[in-house]
Amino acid sequence: MQVLVYGAGQLAQMMYLDGAPLGINVMAVDVSNNAVVHPVSKAPLDYTLEQAIELADALTVEFEHVPEALLQQAEASGKLHPGIDAILVGADRVREKQLLSSLAIPNCPYQIVDDLTQLDSCVENLGERLIIKASRDGYDGYGQWRLKAATELPALKSQLAELDLKAVPLVVEKMLNFDREVSLIGARSSGGEVVVYPLAENLHHEGQLHVSVAPASASTAALNDQAKDIFTKLVNGMDYVGVLAVELFQCGDELLVNELAPRVHNSGHWSQAGSPTSQFENHLRAVLDLPLGLACNTGGEAAVSAMINIIGCDDHQMALLSVPGVHFHWYGKSVRQKRKMGHINVTASSYADLGSKLQKLSEYLSLAHFPCLTDEANRLASVS
Amino acid sequence: MQVLVYGAGQLAQMMYLDGAPLGINVMAVDVSNNAVVHPVSKAPLDYTLEQAIELADALTVEFEHVPEALLQQAEASGKLHPGIDAILVGADRVREKQLLSSLAIPNCPYQIVDDLTQLDSCVENLGERLIIKASRDGYDGYGQWRLKAATELPALKSQLAELDLKAVPLVVEKMLNFDREVSLIGARSSGGEVVVYPLAENLHHEGQLHVSVAPASASTAALNDQAKDIFTKLVNGMDYVGVLAVELFQCGDELLVNELAPRVHNSGHWSQAGSPTSQFENHLRAVLDLPLGLACNTGGEAAVSAMINIIGCDDHQMALLSVPGVHFHWYGKSVRQKRKMGHINVTASSYADLGSKLQKLSEYLSLAHFPCLTDEANRLASVS
Repeated sequence: MQVLVYGAGQLAQMMYLDGAPLGINVMAVDVSNNAVVHPVSKAPLDYTLEQAIELADALTVEFEHVPEALLQQAEASGKLHPGIDAILVGADRVREKQLLSSLAIPNCPYQIVDDLTQLDSCVENLGERLIIKASRDGYDGYGQWRLKAATELPALKSQLAELDLKAVPLVVEKMLNFDREVSLIGARSSGGEVVVYPLAENLHHEGQLHVSVAPASASTAALNDQAKDIFTKLVNGMDYVGVLAVELFQCGDELLVNELAPRVHNSGHWSQAGSPTSQFENHLRAVLDLPLGLACNTGGEAAVSAMINIIGCDDHQMALLSVPGVHFHWYGKSVRQKRKMGHINVTASSYADLGSKLQKLSEYLSLAHFPCLTDEANRLASVS
Repeated sequence: MQVLVYGAGQLAQMMYLDGAPLGINVMAVDVSNNAVVHPVSKAPLDYTLEQAIELADALTVEFEHVPEALLQQAEASGKLHPGIDAILVGADRVREKQLLSSLAIPNCPYQIVDDLTQLDSCVENLGERLIIKASRDGYDGYGQWRLKAATELPALKSQLAELDLKAVPLVVEKMLNFDREVSLIGARSSGGEVVVYPLAENLHHEGQLHVSVAPASASTAALNDQAKDIFTKLVNGMDYVGVLAVELFQCGDELLVNELAPRVHNSGHWSQAGSPTSQFENHLRAVLDLPLGLACNTGGEAAVSAMINIIGCDDHQMALLSVPGVHFHWYGKSVRQKRKMGHINVTASSYADLGSKLQKLSEYLSLAHFPCLTDEANRLASVS
């Protein structure tokens, strides 16, 4: 079996590594030059893009910002999963909001803005605390602005004056006082089988995910059911095939959808070590219409899991492998500020055990690059 | 980090897949032509053997029958782990028996035979039920003969008459009435850290491993301690670095060493799905002098594990992935009789759960090629 992934970064790499045992050969497309490359070595393979499309049993994406012409070509093959509509939903916040509204899925109150004068009505309707997001090409905190008081409106308007809002409208959302950010990763196969992983709890810093913990602490069966219900509505509504990530805000007992990612997701990396089937394997199974695998926490020494991103640095000590239950993942990229360089999965028998392992782990890391780690270690140590 | 593996089969492939996340690049040597190849695709890499040796941080082997000249060259680099002496012990039953005797490690009573007339004294000293093994190049049941009664001796002698026993002596062992075959997989790093996995229970058929179950049912702490003691004596005695597999016969409460394999081993494949750290990762950690990882059964949904070899066939149905806890591994080779094509790991919460999963799994396999599977499923179903 052959799978072609648009995008040649770490997500394609991890699909390759989980596909190989299943006899699935994963190839990657570098979308900057359409070269077909090996997902780990990035060495060019002896195929043109057209040949690779022909050869593949399924095509998929590792990120949603693939040039639309490439997606159209992929869709035309009849083998692209998820389909182009779902991918474009993930790449365009206006489409995303329209989808959520059409499926009556709770999300943050919002207004679409394609003219700066409309910001005044946003303040009237949504209040003076707002998050303003470019509808396309914005991720990891890029292309986002905040309004904290109506008095800041003139300054914000001049900051946004350069943007072509007719081409790329803004999605303006009410800033919610949510309790925490969680995410649900799940998969749907073309036959309609659906599995979801337990909710993960996510810590962001400056717009980037730093730590995920799964299962989210204090996540009740009712909360997981609510999340699964949202997930099922979404994937059935889109006739979605593959892994979908749903980022959610938890406000009291209610979950609001913040964002969708039509792909394997950073907040699901814990499943590599913490679940009988990783999100990467389940994604491949789904797009190839194979039966899906168990998506629970494994239990025992892997009853709970944390994923810690390594961002913008490479000065970790490999002696961190002495912490029991540590699983290290390096993406093989050169260091750049804010760049995701790798991640560390940690499995443990309880939250307290996990907290103590994160504490030990922190001894081998330069903490300036891990601003959430010790606080999270302390928090987990006290979760019962 | 770079590791060069002599041998380009499935063991090198699985080292590659477990090394990549750690930022370890594994290259393989096809010892039939000294080409340096990619361990998964087998595509030639742009290095001569000498360049790869120079580039590598560590050299290791995936099988013990590497031409001795190659091993000498590898040893001369100072980076070969385990060292040449340990590898040759695994490749030569005479050296193996000498090592076991020198370390006073219990093993089957034996005699070395380099002249067929000595077989008579074997019958006198060891009894008339004997296993006769070529001392080199014998594995998976090749190069082995059995004597079941003294009356068969003349027929056996004429069968062996062609062999050059001065060049390759025979090891003649008393055929023991052992209760079962178990194996211990463990690792020692160059710093002297030692970890061992729980004992696995192995089912052979016609000289080939078909099923391993870990932990071995009814394996007491005393039995595991006895095994660990044997392992520790062996690795310290040899100043061994890397994963070592020790095949053992259990006779009552006593363990006798049957055979050593100076490498990752088929009976340790269960650790890929059933342990926080696989034998492949621990081997790489050991030869690179990194801290070793947890070598227990994970617990929970992976409290017990089975490994089923796929031998000489490729007509499995991929719908077998619908059995929860199934992990499929395909080596990408063409079918040949008695050839190991792949394996299936199954994790479960209890032996009964494991038995029921093996039963379900058997529905997707051509049972002629899995002669031990349903019996083992039934046996496990009744283990408390």
